[in-house]
Amino acid sequence: MIRHVVLFTWTEDATAEQKAEVAARLNTLPGIISQIRSYAVGADAGINPGNHEFAVVADFDTVEDYLAYRDHPTHLSIIAEHIKPILASRAAVQYAV
Amino acid sequence: MIRHVVLFTWTEDATAEQKAEVAARLNTLPGIISQIRSYAVGADAGINPGNHEFAVVADFDTVEDYLAYRDHPTHLSIIAEHIKPILASRAAVQYAV
Repeated sequence: MIRHVVLFTWTEDATAEQKAEVAARLNTLPGIISQIRSYAVGADAGINPGNHEFAVVADFDTVEDYLAYRDHPTHLSIIAEHIKPILASRAAVQYAV
Repeated sequence: MIRHVVLFTWTEDATAEQKAEVAARLNTLPGIISQIRSYAVGADAGINPGNHEFAVVADFDTVEDYLAYRDHPTHLSIIAEHIKPILASRAAVQYAV
């Protein structure tokens, strides 16, 4: 199985509504992209200082299935319309689990 | 449940042996820290450019269980002896799943 992990920080002027909309839009994807095996997104819990602000962890059976998610037009639309406008930084890894 | 996610990049002079030792040492922790519910570490698969190099995703029943892991002496020893010497950058999030 291949796991996709991505962590974001948001711009200082990003609103709570914009951040919530990212989570809401991403959470529609498991109903749209059948290759997703497991999907959990969420805002940082505030336990530790210096953290990123938002996480996505998604599991797929194969690398091809992950690529189908990565390149899916609905996913790309959410990135363009809801993530990029408030994105400050991004860290990602895909790894075998 | 609380999920701990951390992504690392390594220094340019980090060796393959040092990187492998990080994974090997971390993989001993589920046998040592009983609060760990799920634990999967691994090196980036090289699918996308610009990624971080190593991921840890760990699940715990409660925030207190995560803190027991975070502050466990064996974990702190691995961080001090094997991670920090080759650490270039770190991104982390803890979030409810």
